[in-house]
Amino acid sequence: MRGSLLLITFLCTAYTAAAAETPTSSQVSSVVAANSLKTDMAPLFAQEVERSRKFLALMMDAGVVVPVPKDPGGGYTHEQHKQNYTAIYQGGQLYKLTGEQKYADYVRDVLLAYAEIYPTLGEHPARKDSQGSGRLFWQVLNDAMWMVDSIQGYEAIRDSLSEVDRKNIDDNLFRKAAEFLSTGSAVTFSKIHNHATWATAGVGMTGYVLGEKELVDIALLGLDKNGETGFLRQSELLFSPDGYYTEGPYYQRFALKPFVVFAGAIENNDPARKIFEHRDGILLKALRTTIQLTYDGYFFPFNDAIRDKSLKTDELYHGVAVAYSKTRDPGLLSIAQWQGRTVLTDAGKLVANDLAAGKAKPFPFQSMLLSDGREGDQGAVAVLRNGDSTSGQALIAKNSSQGMGHGHFDKLSWQYYDNGHEIVSDYGAARFLNIEAKHGGRYLPENETWGKQTIAHNTLVVDGKSHFDGDAEAADKLAPEQLHFSDKAGSQISTAKMTGAYPGVDFTRTLALLELDGLNHPLVADVMRVNGQGSHQYDMPLHYNGHIMRVGFDLKSNVESRPVLGSDNGYQHIWVDATANPESADKAFVTWINDDRFYTSRWIPQAGSEAILAESGANDPEFNLRREQMIVQRVKAAGGSVFASVLEAHGRYDGAAERTTDSDSQIKSIQHTRDGDVDLLLIETLTGEKSVLAISYDQDETKKHNAMINGTKVNWTGFADHIRLGGGSQ
Amino acid sequence: MRGSLLLITFLCTAYTAAAAETPTSSQVSSVVAANSLKTDMAPLFAQEVERSRKFLALMMDAGVVVPVPKDPGGGYTHEQHKQNYTAIYQGGQLYKLTGEQKYADYVRDVLLAYAEIYPTLGEHPARKDSQGSGRLFWQVLNDAMWMVDSIQGYEAIRDSLSEVDRKNIDDNLFRKAAEFLSTGSAVTFSKIHNHATWATAGVGMTGYVLGEKELVDIALLGLDKNGETGFLRQSELLFSPDGYYTEGPYYQRFALKPFVVFAGAIENNDPARKIFEHRDGILLKALRTTIQLTYDGYFFPFNDAIRDKSLKTDELYHGVAVAYSKTRDPGLLSIAQWQGRTVLTDAGKLVANDLAAGKAKPFPFQSMLLSDGREGDQGAVAVLRNGDSTSGQALIAKNSSQGMGHGHFDKLSWQYYDNGHEIVSDYGAARFLNIEAKHGGRYLPENETWGKQTIAHNTLVVDGKSHFDGDAEAADKLAPEQLHFSDKAGSQISTAKMTGAYPGVDFTRTLALLELDGLNHPLVADVMRVNGQGSHQYDMPLHYNGHIMRVGFDLKSNVESRPVLGSDNGYQHIWVDATANPESADKAFVTWINDDRFYTSRWIPQAGSEAILAESGANDPEFNLRREQMIVQRVKAAGGSVFASVLEAHGRYDGAAERTTDSDSQIKSIQHTRDGDVDLLLIETLTGEKSVLAISYDQDETKKHNAMINGTKVNWTGFADHIRLGGGSQ
Repeated sequence: MRGSLLLITFLCTAYTAAAAETPTSSQVSSVVAANSLKTDMAPLFAQEVERSRKFLALMMDAGVVVPVPKDPGGGYTHEQHKQNYTAIYQGGQLYKLTGEQKYADYVRDVLLAYAEIYPTLGEHPARKDSQGSGRLFWQVLNDAMWMVDSIQGYEAIRDSLSEVDRKNIDDNLFRKAAEFLSTGSAVTFSKIHNHATWATAGVGMTGYVLGEKELVDIALLGLDKNGETGFLRQSELLFSPDGYYTEGPYYQRFALKPFVVFAGAIENNDPARKIFEHRDGILLKALRTTIQLTYDGYFFPFNDAIRDKSLKTDELYHGVAVAYSKTRDPGLLSIAQWQGRTVLTDAGKLVANDLAAGKAKPFPFQSMLLSDGREGDQGAVAVLRNGDSTSGQALIAKNSSQGMGHGHFDKLSWQYYDNGHEIVSDYGAARFLNIEAKHGGRYLPENETWGKQTIAHNTLVVDGKSHFDGDAEAADKLAPEQLHFSDKAGSQISTAKMTGAYPGVDFTRTLALLELDGLNHPLVADVMRVNGQGSHQYDMPLHYNGHIMRVGFDLKSNVESRPVLGSDNGYQHIWVDATANPESADKAFVTWINDDRFYTSRWIPQAGSEAILAESGANDPEFNLRREQMIVQRVKAAGGSVFASVLEAHGRYDGAAERTTDSDSQIKSIQHTRDGDVDLLLIETLTGEKSVLAISYDQDETKKHNAMINGTKVNWTGFADHIRLGGGSQ
Repeated sequence: MRGSLLLITFLCTAYTAAAAETPTSSQVSSVVAANSLKTDMAPLFAQEVERSRKFLALMMDAGVVVPVPKDPGGGYTHEQHKQNYTAIYQGGQLYKLTGEQKYADYVRDVLLAYAEIYPTLGEHPARKDSQGSGRLFWQVLNDAMWMVDSIQGYEAIRDSLSEVDRKNIDDNLFRKAAEFLSTGSAVTFSKIHNHATWATAGVGMTGYVLGEKELVDIALLGLDKNGETGFLRQSELLFSPDGYYTEGPYYQRFALKPFVVFAGAIENNDPARKIFEHRDGILLKALRTTIQLTYDGYFFPFNDAIRDKSLKTDELYHGVAVAYSKTRDPGLLSIAQWQGRTVLTDAGKLVANDLAAGKAKPFPFQSMLLSDGREGDQGAVAVLRNGDSTSGQALIAKNSSQGMGHGHFDKLSWQYYDNGHEIVSDYGAARFLNIEAKHGGRYLPENETWGKQTIAHNTLVVDGKSHFDGDAEAADKLAPEQLHFSDKAGSQISTAKMTGAYPGVDFTRTLALLELDGLNHPLVADVMRVNGQGSHQYDMPLHYNGHIMRVGFDLKSNVESRPVLGSDNGYQHIWVDATANPESADKAFVTWINDDRFYTSRWIPQAGSEAILAESGANDPEFNLRREQMIVQRVKAAGGSVFASVLEAHGRYDGAAERTTDSDSQIKSIQHTRDGDVDLLLIETLTGEKSVLAISYDQDETKKHNAMINGTKVNWTGFADHIRLGGGSQ
């Protein structure tokens, strides 16, 4: 530790000298910006400048407020230090843009105040053992975020400082902070994890600003500088070849900012690295993938996701601006337009100018298969879309890997969006971010007992236990296998298989988005084949959003006392409203309404199977859970089983016009047949249109297949297809 | 019956002759319209014409479809006949506007089809005994609505018809329909009720079009033509002097269309009546009052209201257009702008033109007291507003009378809106309008067992029974007394008293919207004084929307089995999540979040009182109820009691910026004192600001009062006031 400090001190003299002589490239560009500012400022950029001026005015009125760290997330000191780094960053940018000295002075005074307390700080009083402690914040991650913004603000004003102030801030604040975040927090710094990305970005950018090669090197290549950890390695290990971040969209969004911001700094200071071309342009690909993982601008809430996260977030303002400045992709402009925001950089100015020039084009949301894992062999996320991303359909098959500590035990789960709403839902994280009343804004106990458990998701639960029996380490070792993906218009199909989530039981699920004649909206078909030995209880939950309109079968309702479904693995949080034993597919359905549209889930009840209508919220004395509805199919079987169902959107409720149409299901019947190794699902509409979803499970896409269902022979080629048989009366 | 038919037949010859000679005034104006159409058509009007052209194109493609009546609300024949009268109306207007023959021909053919089946129709197969049966629809009301639109469409094309067709439609359709709706449905026709308003409007307009004075006379003056029933009497009895309709905003909206449309016809055909000046311009006043009874455009859901009703409804498109044509009030233009719609009449064209000319001004939503009852002596609705009607605050004290059969047993109940949301809520009707799966779209059984019951509202329940023990007839005989109303900025106060809802128990409630130094949002104060003899159980429910963040007191939670609170009067629908015995006002609070704002309800727990945290949805095997949360204060007392509480909005949750502020209550304490006849509520904020809500209950507004609370003497004048004592540390 002491050794490295000496080394740093030695190296720095040379570099600061250099830095003092010639302004860095980003400072050069800032001069250009300042001059061009008066001449042309597009509305979006002008609005950002105005927003920042207002914010800085408030902060400057309040004066320099740098309290001794005390509170956890959401608490006063936590929020004040967040405000401060935002002010340091924006104040620096405003100085670059306007040349107004007051901004440089305020940023200087705030940094001097930090330089005064920083050396005195030890571990944070509100630290949790589960998280590395920060100095300014309860977890080291927030310290890294503080540094990423603060160093950029400092860079913008550093040359305007007196030698004394500069040395003071260099030595007592940023060098010490860089030391703390690197060698001082070696475990976090050396992770392959977004916490480490923030740390390496902060340390690396500090290296460039202070002119300390050592800091840049350990940031890029890890503390040992052997490239086994550090920023470059993270960019290789954390994103799949398709730019999917293994923790899921919410964390992908979060991880993206340090990647793109630090990459921008690398590009400025070390263009020879061609960082944006590194690994086939993975960083820009990751940015586009992040945008593709949204519906109506909101991220698919995989794993420990906070559900109200949308593209309207600081990370994506930066990401879109940097990506656009590199690619000039007009689709990104329409994202910026939807965000209604950009950043105070040259890239942000470019976005604003080109938006004002009318260069925006719709972002091409589309069906896609996103492989997971460094080599793309750790499962995948299949996104099947129809129509736009605001009112159209999106069926998401979560066939990805566990995704480390924030992962949920939900292999082969799915979600469905339609008409602007999440219809088949994923709970996301049990957490109220930064709300102190809720366990200091940290993850709630129910995140473990409900949010992560398999029964809280739309996938198979065997014998009442979660996948991998809830063991995250075991779960990280095994990923699903994506067997098939087709985005053929009108018959989009994804099939994946999971082996090892349960001893002796594997399951293969086909999810399809099909267009049927006689239906106004696409139909979701779901065929899950379970292979297992011995007797098991198989539960298949469907978590949906809406108000029940009609239930096709007789219910045994718990109207006067509401029991709980189980005692652990999430079952303890489920209130049982009613149970039933639907006998045939024409009766095994539930219809609900969401907004102005009706939805019917219809399934083929297996012999002796049970249907459970339930609501979350049991064993929740602190009211930490949202209360949401679910339907659970329960089958007790010797050996395997097959769950076959369809989800149908139909009709319209128009409250203003007091007109309702097609409020009941438009499907007449569904039938399932196993013919050899083949699964066949026959769907017939009320208008008599018949079609078959045929699955051969044969990955030879050129091989021809045929099979019989209900006396009809169907032919198709390859793994799976949707065959229309006609017969409609319309 | 036969006699009146003969009379009609006799009279009509003379009148049709007259009608045939000279076009009616409204036909004259239509010619003007047609000519001016090409020259100028403002966007809003052009869009309506286009909308109608598209609708008529669809209807004309489908051809003339007039099925034999069969289905209840929401069913096929029900919806088809609704489509038809819309097509008849709009087709007629399009013919007037464009002169295009195809529209006249289509309307003619549809009407001829009706003329063929109408004489053959008896009682509707789907009628309910509780409602008068229609011919075309399951209830006579819908037949009247059919007639109001159809006769206007017919008027527009009548002169273009052959003698034969005209006589056929006159005699076999409209004369017979007019006879059915008047003498044939004498009970409905003679009611003082909105059903009768529709009937009289349809019959009266038919009288003008067919030139049959008899029909006009019985419509205006009732079947006996003595003015004790009929349209004029309805306009006198159904609206209070402040233009409040006793059934509540939802039905006021609904009743308004026949009033304004028929009034327009009266004005055209019989201007000497000065109908719009009748009773001090009550009809236009009622229109303005209807608009005042909204938040963010949605009606306060009093009584049997469907909650998704907003100003975006056909009745209000007509109402706003007619009212604007009479008053030229620019505030009405901004309502039309919000509606984004208007009607195909000259009034609609005027609205569109003046909107395009930029004449719109914001509609003046404001605090107001709206008396109920013909003489304005049947209680009142007090609306206390702050800020605009979209994001500001609205506190509504429902101190009005029962409002007939659709009334709820909720005397002195209240609602609160803030930040664009309903925070303290009213359930409205238990009904899914026109959704056949839900009891044919009619009122659900739960409308009686929950929607109307007192415990489902935010007011006092004595001994577990609803007001008037749920007897609507008894309830209609007694109304609350509005004792005080002040809209003084920063201290708006309403006080009302209810006597007779319970034997031996009366209650007086003061609701206030107060601005306190040190708080960012107004505070709601609520002091309910209960006078009673003997031992009673007093329940005070608070129905709120949001997710619980913090509970100030210890809970006995029902986490593993959820009991029901009671067995009848609505209590059978309440699941009990937890019970508690909060001991002091600093602990007796619940904080929840709604959207991005926090709310804390804080009360002064009476000795031995209980707090019950609960959710609706028990004994609801058909899932007919929305599941909503409530807090019930329960006091068992010998004699009277006082419920004193405040509702506070505070802080902000910003998910995008991950910033949370003031998520906990900003109130330090509240204290209540009874000094003589005076009630005092002392409120102290965390910043130390103190203020007192003082209520003398003395209606002499000039009289000076003083009283002591907590060692402090406060002075005020009149019934009640809010006195700021200062002391803030900020």
